Amino acid sequence: MWIDGLQYCRWERRIFEEMRVGGVDAVHVTLSYHEMFRETVLRIEEWNRFFEKNADLIVQARTGADVRRAKADGRTASVFGAQTPSPIEDDIGLVEILHTLGLRFMQLTYNNQSLLATGCYEAEDMGLTRMGREVVAEMNRVGLVVDMSHSADRSTIEAAEHSARPIAITHANPHRWHPARRNKRDAVIEAVVAGGGMMGFSVYPHHLAGGSDCSLDAFCGMVADMVASYGLAHFGIGSDLCQGQPDSVVEWMRVGRWTKGVDFGEGSAAAPGFPPQPAWFRTNADMPKIAKGLAAVGFNKREVMALMGGNWLTFFDKNFGAMT
Amino acid sequence: MWIDGLQYCRWERRIFEEMRVGGVDAVHVTLSYHEMFRETVLRIEEWNRFFEKNADLIVQARTGADVRRAKADGRTASVFGAQTPSPIEDDIGLVEILHTLGLRFMQLTYNNQSLLATGCYEAEDMGLTRMGREVVAEMNRVGLVVDMSHSADRSTIEAAEHSARPIAITHANPHRWHPARRNKRDAVIEAVVAGGGMMGFSVYPHHLAGGSDCSLDAFCGMVADMVASYGLAHFGIGSDLCQGQPDSVVEWMRVGRWTKGVDFGEGSAAAPGFPPQPAWFRTNADMPKIAKGLAAVGFNKREVMALMGGNWLTFFDKNFGAMT
Repeated sequence: MWIDGLQYCRWERRIFEEMRVGGVDAVHVTLSYHEMFRETVLRIEEWNRFFEKNADLIVQARTGADVRRAKADGRTASVFGAQTPSPIEDDIGLVEILHTLGLRFMQLTYNNQSLLATGCYEAEDMGLTRMGREVVAEMNRVGLVVDMSHSADRSTIEAAEHSARPIAITHANPHRWHPARRNKRDAVIEAVVAGGGMMGFSVYPHHLAGGSDCSLDAFCGMVADMVASYGLAHFGIGSDLCQGQPDSVVEWMRVGRWTKGVDFGEGSAAAPGFPPQPAWFRTNADMPKIAKGLAAVGFNKREVMALMGGNWLTFFDKNFGAMT
Repeated sequence: MWIDGLQYCRWERRIFEEMRVGGVDAVHVTLSYHEMFRETVLRIEEWNRFFEKNADLIVQARTGADVRRAKADGRTASVFGAQTPSPIEDDIGLVEILHTLGLRFMQLTYNNQSLLATGCYEAEDMGLTRMGREVVAEMNRVGLVVDMSHSADRSTIEAAEHSARPIAITHANPHRWHPARRNKRDAVIEAVVAGGGMMGFSVYPHHLAGGSDCSLDAFCGMVADMVASYGLAHFGIGSDLCQGQPDSVVEWMRVGRWTKGVDFGEGSAAAPGFPPQPAWFRTNADMPKIAKGLAAVGFNKREVMALMGGNWLTFFDKNFGAMT
């Protein structure tokens, strides 16, 4: 069972076919960045068309059991997520509505301050807001996972502590390996892991030591280092793959409608677009290379399976349903 | 198993308690009249609160199996419906979205012309529109039942014929018994029944011969006459009960936002509000009286059970899921 903890590809049949080639059994797909509720529903309508027209390749998953059924059918399971809380607007009732529509991950913040918490690009980090605490409790109740990939440190630690259920960092790497603003310091990882949470390792070049030139061996060595520090159970892949997307999309991700100017995020005026992917992970068909790389740095077969998807599946099983 | 094929009460815990007293095992509840998509979602959010706060009394049902489980639990199952197609706005993709959120009945028209078909108060009846045919096919695909209670004759007949699955008239009575504009002529009932459809008999005074003074015996006699004409399998109750609603609500039902003036619908300037209910059916606690009335006009126990809910349950089983 191989599961990618985050992708935002330019979805089309060709990519769904590549997922089958690459052995990607399930993927957490980003539905929306700055889309408000009605716009997010339009994204779900698009996915409903994808599911209807590509029923031989993909199927929506709402539970771990759905993921297992998809694998048994030879299809890739898509699990919906949102990278900002814009889809719930300022209405806590939309948490359950979106969960019913299949949303299973939602970031509380995306780089900036939100109604709920602070993003990793703000100068100050106020932690969880009043509404943030309420929304985390509601997400816990229905089974919508708190994702803090783009959040600031204090906010993430407070979310991990306040949340009654494990939270996730679906796509990031350790700050100690590559001190990017989006990568996570040990205190943050410790808080997430202590709550039973998950972290998916990113293959997005800005998150890699050496960027686009990072080797597969270096990436897998980083994974081994993290497993040595925190144990095997809390880690997986969250590739952050944006296969086929034009550069206008990375601008949308960073800028949304929050400024009339330009924010380069992890990029720069000199390099505003998507960075080139490392040679060993350009498409979904490259997924087996990561499994081989993990074996090459010393993980045994069971450990490779846990890191490639088994740990995510266990996390899905525990966290996608209503709180009991 | 007793099922009411349509109610639009002013929902509160007291009424949920009365449903248990009255032995109402399931009810098709109107979520929305003229509410557009986002407003309909707000109605679902309200229902989610009802379910959360009254979990000992009510539960949402999406299938016949859910209804059976609710009865086994001693709870009343609520099945969502919309009395106009306003919730899908002009977007066929919202059919599946609303089905996922639990919508199981949708009227194609409510008195007036809609994007889909003609309502029973228009002077001309153009039948199903171009979009109407597409939406009926999509409703068939996902398992959202076409309800033609407030539609014009030709539109209803065309919907019955065009639909690949049975349709419903959830709340109306025969025109031959009481020639109200909302009651259904034999040609309409024949078309619905021929397609395997269902009709729920209404206890709303404007639909009753004699209005508020209609006797239980006369109502049950009408049921017996219909069963004699069309057989037992196609009929049930659709009381149209609007328990606890203020008169402002009947104005909303009739007027929505389609005019700045007033439309009295089945009422009149002299009697613009809700008419008084017949003495034998004022609240959900009165449901057993209908069962007794049906027995009194000669239906045996099996027939009473079929009319009180068994037929609706069979219909739910066949028509609430994706088309196979």
